[in-house]
Amino acid sequence: TPASSGSVNLAVIPGDGIGQEVTTEALKVLEVAAPAGMHVAQTSYDLGAERYLATGEVLPDTVLSEIRGHDAILLGAVGGKPNDPNLPPGILERGLLLRLRFELDHYVNLRPSRIFPGVTSPLSREILGDDEVDFVVVREGTEGPYTGNGGALRVGTPAEVATEVSVNTAYGVERVLRDAFARAERRPRKKLTLVHKTNVLVHAGAVWWRLTQEVAAEHPDVTVDYMHIDAAMIHMTTNPQRFDVIVTDNLFGDIITDLAGAISGGIGLAASGNINPDRTAPSMFEPVHGSAPDIAGQQVADPTAAILSVSLLLDHLGHAEAASVVEQAVMADLAERGTTTRRTSEVGDAIAKRVAG
Amino acid sequence: TPASSGSVNLAVIPGDGIGQEVTTEALKVLEVAAPAGMHVAQTSYDLGAERYLATGEVLPDTVLSEIRGHDAILLGAVGGKPNDPNLPPGILERGLLLRLRFELDHYVNLRPSRIFPGVTSPLSREILGDDEVDFVVVREGTEGPYTGNGGALRVGTPAEVATEVSVNTAYGVERVLRDAFARAERRPRKKLTLVHKTNVLVHAGAVWWRLTQEVAAEHPDVTVDYMHIDAAMIHMTTNPQRFDVIVTDNLFGDIITDLAGAISGGIGLAASGNINPDRTAPSMFEPVHGSAPDIAGQQVADPTAAILSVSLLLDHLGHAEAASVVEQAVMADLAERGTTTRRTSEVGDAIAKRVAG
Ligand SMILES: CC(C)[C@H](C(=O)O)[C@@H](O)C(=O)O
Ligand SMILES: CC(C)[C@H](C(=O)O)[C@@H](O)C(=O)O
Repeated sequence: TPASSGSVNLAVIPGDGIGQEVTTEALKVLEVAAPAGMHVAQTSYDLGAERYLATGEVLPDTVLSEIRGHDAILLGAVGGKPNDPNLPPGILERGLLLRLRFELDHYVNLRPSRIFPGVTSPLSREILGDDEVDFVVVREGTEGPYTGNGGALRVGTPAEVATEVSVNTAYGVERVLRDAFARAERRPRKKLTLVHKTNVLVHAGAVWWRLTQEVAAEHPDVTVDYMHIDAAMIHMTTNPQRFDVIVTDNLFGDIITDLAGAISGGIGLAASGNINPDRTAPSMFEPVHGSAPDIAGQQVADPTAAILSVSLLLDHLGHAEAASVVEQAVMADLAERGTTTRRTSEVGDAIAKRVAG
Repeated sequence: TPASSGSVNLAVIPGDGIGQEVTTEALKVLEVAAPAGMHVAQTSYDLGAERYLATGEVLPDTVLSEIRGHDAILLGAVGGKPNDPNLPPGILERGLLLRLRFELDHYVNLRPSRIFPGVTSPLSREILGDDEVDFVVVREGTEGPYTGNGGALRVGTPAEVATEVSVNTAYGVERVLRDAFARAERRPRKKLTLVHKTNVLVHAGAVWWRLTQEVAAEHPDVTVDYMHIDAAMIHMTTNPQRFDVIVTDNLFGDIITDLAGAISGGIGLAASGNINPDRTAPSMFEPVHGSAPDIAGQQVADPTAAILSVSLLLDHLGHAEAASVVEQAVMADLAERGTTTRRTSEVGDAIAKRVAG
């Protein structure tokens, strides 16, 4: 049952680097955006590279089970300095971020993309034209090559063999497709594009393809098409207006949403929700960007993606109107931003003021 | 031993759709570009969707062994109508294209990208600036998720499980890295970027990472950096000038080269070489684009990518100068193209005339 009023228990994981700064601004906006009568109780969890480097702990079971008791999670960003020898690749990603997504069954990784008025896209004016770019990627979040299956033999020798196994189940694929179709149904254009690589990954491709046809049959008013992931690169950069809902596997979704973020004016604006649609565990909201340790603590990071993640969080908690107020405030702020550089807290203040006022 | 003069035996696979038309133009250019004294003997092989639909044959062993006897292969494009129920996904890709790459050990899939003067990129003028975009992707061609490993259980039922296995060997990764480093060494900027997803695909990532460090130690004058595939999407669209040589796995290479093609002015200009650097079997040259059945036979396809593939072929056969003449002719043609529409054969004629002249 969605927490539609009363008290909301929020677990906050500010994380590392700019994660802390952007989370502060996101919470500032949440405070003023929360509808009258909604009380937001926060518990902050110290997780990420810093904690790992200091204690060796990534995500203790006791912490996980505490987090599980909340209504939702707001995450800033986790990750240490690139190539830190004390922080092998994968430790935090698999031990913390992905562990949360898997343990809390975040099978819908939701990543909306819009080119907001006033925002500069790297695409040319000829490509952008007059039509809106406004689509959402529904990335599967609990399967594919992200399961940690695979291994290695004779590691470190010239005879090493390393495998990565992409696991795809009808159970997992069908449920994310159902969510994606339901979203397409609610959008004016009612269009869904399956992105995969069925011509090479024939086994995984077949289950995605078959179930897309099956679920499509229950949604006759949704227009369905298919695109290989490589072809999607071309369409995304030459005709992004064509997309409405994209549904895809975990890895393809990772790749295409960074491209989507880039063409929509930068990853600094890209929000995401790691959603458990069945509400058997809290969903988690986070900016798509990383912890950017090189610019951390300088109040130069853009908190917009974190603030837009608050909009997704409010929507998930049943407060569609408050969610929309936050989004409108961000849009208005973006439209007026121009080229002036503002500090992280100034952006948060400006958006909070619009939400309040 | 490279065929540096005398007779060259070329296997030609025009394939389906526009494959036939663009191959005609590529051969037209090859004829005039071949250095004096070089005789090009051609054998044409009828392979692709049409043959499969007519006979059920994809790549008979006898044909493969005949092809193997040639010095090089020129391929147009293969593939039938999208969603043809008689042509299940993967049949031609895995049975023909990938089978050739694997059987002939094309472990270097070479895909150069340049934004040629006069060509329109979907990127904005602000992004393009004044610096050249000129990089090459060295895509591994015989491993990764392309090996056909994997399978499915309880197919067609709600309990279906389908897997795809990415296979990565030190043997396979090291040899492609060596080729990529050697190419970086020969280029003015001497820069190599490894693209992978080491933070999630930790086993495969570790072997790519370790061997990159090892081979880098032998090339102290090559500057090496690393980028996750998702981050590469952002750099490719906001700062493509930064790339020189990109080395990456089979699937990431498939994805990033279509993006590279798109930002360089379209897949109609993207050439590729499937190269066996050890010359134990013939290498194969082909445009990156597909067979585009919707526009086939109308003489509207752009043969430029096929013609640029001839340049790569000449270079591989040891005719660097002839290769460069073809590339210069294409560049001159592109610079003068403007917005006039020409027929496929007119483009071939114009480029052949420049090469001759
Ligand atoms: C950090 C990494 C594990 C993560 C992913 O690959 O999913 C990130 O890139 C993202 O997109 O949220
Ligand atoms: C057709 C397909 C098998 C092929 C690939 O995935 O390698 C194509 O996309 C390419 O890039 O050459």
